[in-house]
Amino acid sequence: MKVVVDAFGGDNAPLEIVEGVKLALNKIKELEVILCGKEETLKPMIEGYQNRIEIIDADEIIKNEDHPTLAIRQKKNSSLVRAYDILKERDDVIGLVSAGSTGAVLAGAIMKIGRIKGISRPALAPILPTKKSSDVIIIDSGANIDCKPINLLHFALMGSAYYSIIYNKENPRVALLNNGSEEGKGNELAKESFPLLKGAPINFIGNKEGGDFMSGDVDVMVADGFAGNALLKGTEGAVMAVLSLMKHSIKSHFWSKIGYIFMKKTFKELKGRIDILNKHGGSPLLGCKKLVVKNHGSCKRNNICASIEQTIVLNDSKLINKIEEALAKLNIEKNDEAVL
Amino acid sequence: MKVVVDAFGGDNAPLEIVEGVKLALNKIKELEVILCGKEETLKPMIEGYQNRIEIIDADEIIKNEDHPTLAIRQKKNSSLVRAYDILKERDDVIGLVSAGSTGAVLAGAIMKIGRIKGISRPALAPILPTKKSSDVIIIDSGANIDCKPINLLHFALMGSAYYSIIYNKENPRVALLNNGSEEGKGNELAKESFPLLKGAPINFIGNKEGGDFMSGDVDVMVADGFAGNALLKGTEGAVMAVLSLMKHSIKSHFWSKIGYIFMKKTFKELKGRIDILNKHGGSPLLGCKKLVVKNHGSCKRNNICASIEQTIVLNDSKLINKIEEALAKLNIEKNDEAVL
Repeated sequence: MKVVVDAFGGDNAPLEIVEGVKLALNKIKELEVILCGKEETLKPMIEGYQNRIEIIDADEIIKNEDHPTLAIRQKKNSSLVRAYDILKERDDVIGLVSAGSTGAVLAGAIMKIGRIKGISRPALAPILPTKKSSDVIIIDSGANIDCKPINLLHFALMGSAYYSIIYNKENPRVALLNNGSEEGKGNELAKESFPLLKGAPINFIGNKEGGDFMSGDVDVMVADGFAGNALLKGTEGAVMAVLSLMKHSIKSHFWSKIGYIFMKKTFKELKGRIDILNKHGGSPLLGCKKLVVKNHGSCKRNNICASIEQTIVLNDSKLINKIEEALAKLNIEKNDEAVL
Repeated sequence: MKVVVDAFGGDNAPLEIVEGVKLALNKIKELEVILCGKEETLKPMIEGYQNRIEIIDADEIIKNEDHPTLAIRQKKNSSLVRAYDILKERDDVIGLVSAGSTGAVLAGAIMKIGRIKGISRPALAPILPTKKSSDVIIIDSGANIDCKPINLLHFALMGSAYYSIIYNKENPRVALLNNGSEEGKGNELAKESFPLLKGAPINFIGNKEGGDFMSGDVDVMVADGFAGNALLKGTEGAVMAVLSLMKHSIKSHFWSKIGYIFMKKTFKELKGRIDILNKHGGSPLLGCKKLVVKNHGSCKRNNICASIEQTIVLNDSKLINKIEEALAKLNIEKNDEAVL
């Protein structure tokens, strides 16, 4: 089975990307990888893996500052555009992994691969830990900034299908991000989205606040990309801030340093829980006709390896078919006009 | 100096409210308090403080479920409405403290006290710690759900004036919450607000993401109440989740329990940093003609005491005048039509 990887996307490209690919090849026997990027740079890096890595030469790089749509149109020989070409042209390539610019990955997916019929906005759904044993995803987390209620309905359907696959959980609990739990709360978008989510073939548990995100009481948090991004980044920042305050305090007190040695197991457990993204890889761009997994720009080799593994899991579990089925179910249950 | 307190607002009313008032009276010699609520309940509770507490009988209570505007109109003998009557009628009362329903406190402020000329939306600006030594405020944090760019401009001006008073810092760093740091990023509201903030007489440092909130690089984070609420609650929830995961892990490992004993000082420091709201009291409702300080519904006596102290500080520092001055400056610098 083949996965195409954008070797020049992300802050740590190409080294961490290529090393991540090697880790995945070592783990998964039947895997083959197509690497897109500067051939002369990549060739010496894949020594010993030549029979399982194909290099597609691409001498341009799409940067974060580039306008996404223009970059996809104009930088035809960039590592990302070439990767999308491969994903589109070759039926045996099951998915694409990139740590490049979010906007460009999204634009490329829409322009080169196309959306699942009925979905107007593909969305990103990263995973976060909760204070209980379950994890939570947020959809959308920043790919779609100005949304309509129908987009949030699709996010809910796609998020529910995705969560049920990765955690093997039927009917995951889907909530709408809001500034209060009562029905009728929220901005215009949330108020109009509520009845759509309530009527959808999902386990909708109503409005939940930002404070419920890591409570373990929600599996899929649905939001527009602006508020969702604020929640996601705020949460990540807060976790890092607590650890940073603690680290600073430990360093300043002799007895705390001693205590830290005894508490190594606890800090290791905490780190393991927080590093959930390393386990699951990046976030798939849900709603496209083929699998696209987007990594953090700052990701390392472990993330890339995990993203490749995730691509295979999502392919084996037929995520895209499941999203199509959920959409079909919705369109049977609902009057088309009412939801589209 | 006199402060009026809603004795029956909040989950822990009236006990924690009355005890908080007593703490403040013990601390501040020249303070007198007017307590609004059921007289027969309150009377035995203020034993020994009768000469410094005046009780105004009010036998109704506004609940969280009540429609804010209707509640203010109809529950004329509620503890909150009576408190607003006192604040309005008596010139010697410098401010009001309540832990009641946010919506009702906001509605009461607008309907009974009125807004500073030029401000259409009063806003809440709670304080959070950062990973450095400075604190950060977020304005608005949930009082105004659907906002216009002009509202965000006013939030920025009011937040800047408020921060500079409580931290005695000239030109605090004001940022616009966004999903990316580049100019031109964001939803419609953020894009339209950016140039207004850029042209305002404040130290505007541009767009910042949710992840920058606790970084210590921002003093005043400006947002609409929906995204601001998601960020605030998400941040608080994440801090609590980390501590909860840690507590659970410590309990499960013998050596971690030992380590915890050595690390007491670090945990105490961390708790002190996180409990910043206890130090500063609740959040003032910025933009009203008189001081109104809103507490968390779950607040305890220490918060009430701190809120009363904060009311006095804000009164002494002439916060309301400073907001009026900032607005006047804006209107001189700008074409009125362009900003209003």
